[in-house]
Amino acid sequence: MNEHFYATPTAALMLIGNELLSGRTQDKNLAFIGSRLAARGIVLAEARIIADIPEVIVDTINHLRAVHTYVFTTGGIGPTHDDITAECVADAFEVELPIHPEAESRLLAYFASRDIEPNADRMRMARIPLGASLIDNPVSIAPGFQMENVIVMAGVPRIMQAMFTNVEPTLAQGPCIESVSVLCDLGEGTLASALRELQERYPNLDLGSYPVSIKNGSSVALVAKGQDIAQLQEVGLLLEEMVTELGGDVLKES
Amino acid sequence: MNEHFYATPTAALMLIGNELLSGRTQDKNLAFIGSRLAARGIVLAEARIIADIPEVIVDTINHLRAVHTYVFTTGGIGPTHDDITAECVADAFEVELPIHPEAESRLLAYFASRDIEPNADRMRMARIPLGASLIDNPVSIAPGFQMENVIVMAGVPRIMQAMFTNVEPTLAQGPCIESVSVLCDLGEGTLASALRELQERYPNLDLGSYPVSIKNGSSVALVAKGQDIAQLQEVGLLLEEMVTELGGDVLKES
Repeated sequence: MNEHFYATPTAALMLIGNELLSGRTQDKNLAFIGSRLAARGIVLAEARIIADIPEVIVDTINHLRAVHTYVFTTGGIGPTHDDITAECVADAFEVELPIHPEAESRLLAYFASRDIEPNADRMRMARIPLGASLIDNPVSIAPGFQMENVIVMAGVPRIMQAMFTNVEPTLAQGPCIESVSVLCDLGEGTLASALRELQERYPNLDLGSYPVSIKNGSSVALVAKGQDIAQLQEVGLLLEEMVTELGGDVLKES
Repeated sequence: MNEHFYATPTAALMLIGNELLSGRTQDKNLAFIGSRLAARGIVLAEARIIADIPEVIVDTINHLRAVHTYVFTTGGIGPTHDDITAECVADAFEVELPIHPEAESRLLAYFASRDIEPNADRMRMARIPLGASLIDNPVSIAPGFQMENVIVMAGVPRIMQAMFTNVEPTLAQGPCIESVSVLCDLGEGTLASALRELQERYPNLDLGSYPVSIKNGSSVALVAKGQDIAQLQEVGLLLEEMVTELGGDVLKES
């Protein structure tokens, strides 16, 4: 990635949970958040997967929120003893973690309607760092929250996606990054030299090559990203020409 | 995770590549590496997904290799202009990046046998930081390498897995962490209190609860991890009793 893509806004993502690091759970949140941020012109600059250890979570929040426009977190906002993200955000910002009246009343109404006991553990999910605003959770009601530039979401993909969708319209809109992609049957070693030359000719585009598995063997996707659509279309044609000149075929993306 | 699980050896993982952060590519390497390290008693303490930016890669390598027993990297060792991991490792260790004779002869033999031109881009894959040892790549020959405690692997899952399998027997063997898992039909809010008590009774185990989707709705997996197998079996039975006492059913893991 060329450094000028590091125009603000940038974001960092924290995926919180031992189960991601032990291999028990396959993460599905990074790709969703990365692509949705990209569509809004926000560069996801880094993602960190960390364990359920308070000091690690607090330090990571404080480091990342000073560096990036936004910090997104997933995981650790449920009712059990290993759900410690809200405490950690409160610690990071050095604020209290009281019961939030609106969160409390939403949870009480939801539990009453489903005949679920509003026990102390469930009501832990109404504790919100002082000064944070709620992020609606249409799936299971217990809200996420935003504290300054830190956006705290659930780890369950369906709930996280609903929360992200709710907060999305409030995010800064960055310069729109478009892309063109050309799939071909040549190896990276065959393409590398011509691709490097093209990157040098178009320094304000970000050119990459990605081996992908397809039905009958392997192929390489050539991708150009940038803000100038006319230029991208031009480079898309040049990439196709490059493939043909090097003796390959352009494949249809399935 | 209880902090005493942070006995050495620990590991950090760096997944290098813009395509992971933009959502273009769904990562499949974290869960594989995490579970294989866990099986060897090595705690994967953190993972970072970073962009193809030299300074970021170099700084991240130098930070993590000072903190952990091992640093694993995936991605960025192919033939194209955005494959910069080998340069970055050499920079991080302040060593040269010469052509490695053994890597060169392997690549030349492989290319000759397949009638592939050994052009300058392909031969970039023979550049290895001075002092590093090679990691065999039975899939596509271009080797990974190990420089002190930094283990550099390909990003393509099939190649990464072969490289990991080759380096695995040389890794330190940590205390073996076993686990028991009980799947049930209760919500986390119902389980939380009893689970917390059990965690307090068994402070040297790591108890967690993970919502999982199953065929007919949702369920929660209760997982206990630790080194004492007899104790884990005991806790496995207690978890089953807990589910029954709370009015739930233990489900078969599919």
